[in-house]
Amino acid sequence: MLSVYLAGPEVFLPDALEIGRQKRQLCARYGFNGLYPLDNSITPKPGERLDELIYQANKALMQRADFGICNLSPFRGPGADAGTVFELGLMTGMGKRVFAYTNDASDYVLRVAAAPATGGQASLRDPSGLEIEDFGNFDNLMLEWAVRESCGHPIVRHDGAADPCRDLTGFEECLRLATTAL
Amino acid sequence: MLSVYLAGPEVFLPDALEIGRQKRQLCARYGFNGLYPLDNSITPKPGERLDELIYQANKALMQRADFGICNLSPFRGPGADAGTVFELGLMTGMGKRVFAYTNDASDYVLRVAAAPATGGQASLRDPSGLEIEDFGNFDNLMLEWAVRESCGHPIVRHDGAADPCRDLTGFEECLRLATTAL
Repeated sequence: MLSVYLAGPEVFLPDALEIGRQKRQLCARYGFNGLYPLDNSITPKPGERLDELIYQANKALMQRADFGICNLSPFRGPGADAGTVFELGLMTGMGKRVFAYTNDASDYVLRVAAAPATGGQASLRDPSGLEIEDFGNFDNLMLEWAVRESCGHPIVRHDGAADPCRDLTGFEECLRLATTAL
Repeated sequence: MLSVYLAGPEVFLPDALEIGRQKRQLCARYGFNGLYPLDNSITPKPGERLDELIYQANKALMQRADFGICNLSPFRGPGADAGTVFELGLMTGMGKRVFAYTNDASDYVLRVAAAPATGGQASLRDPSGLEIEDFGNFDNLMLEWAVRESCGHPIVRHDGAADPCRDLTGFEECLRLATTAL
């Protein structure tokens, strides 16, 4: 049975364990073994740092996993959760396939507060003068294409998910993709 | 001569090429060959997508690089640029060492709008009820410990850099670290 690492900002929810249980249950229904980063189950010994132990535990789970599914919904800003983005990169670098979904169908450009283009610049710029990528993607192009290269395309929820950390429709779509692609 | 991939949101500056020139010049001074993602030099042929070509070009540069230096200063929100975070993950997954700097010395907790802890919860939560990591780190713990495991510690500018995309003091400190660590 293939194992899948379940990355996403839902680990920060008060009911993180319950979401993890639901995700693992869905994985089992599609014939996969879900590996969920259960940060809360780690207890540091004296002299140990909890954050380091979580990093090592998550990395070990990703090393063990055959592939990954990332929740890349926007988190605390216009883009995806940094921890999840790092994990997408890490698994890609390890040569593992990663499926991904976002519960926000808006274009990245629309989520960044855009200042009007000035000085004849064709490109969009934010208030700090930094260019805003305008490729019609859900997030930074490195994320978009890591997912595309790995599994075809990111799953984008166009019908709008009320709760980006708890809605599992896109997650289940990734599982469906995985059953045919792997 | 070792090659170093230069990751950071400065590629979005109007003067991105000039910052790249400065970074490569500093690399040369420390005996390294700087590889800077020159997105603007890529011209797609008919039927090709620019964003995909940039992804492939950046990935090829990282495959070629011996190590990386990332600018993990906050970008469009409380945390680092998603593209740079992905690249930190990718290079870590490829087994390459990555040095990193941030030009913002504030704690991650202080950069997230924190709602008061409620219901006897010891942990901090943001207005959406999501836990805010409180480990005294500059960003998400996965970033902090990927860098720590790789090269000791992230370089944090405590004297405050006026321009997080152009100030190269932390960058040069990473180069200094690299000369002794590699």
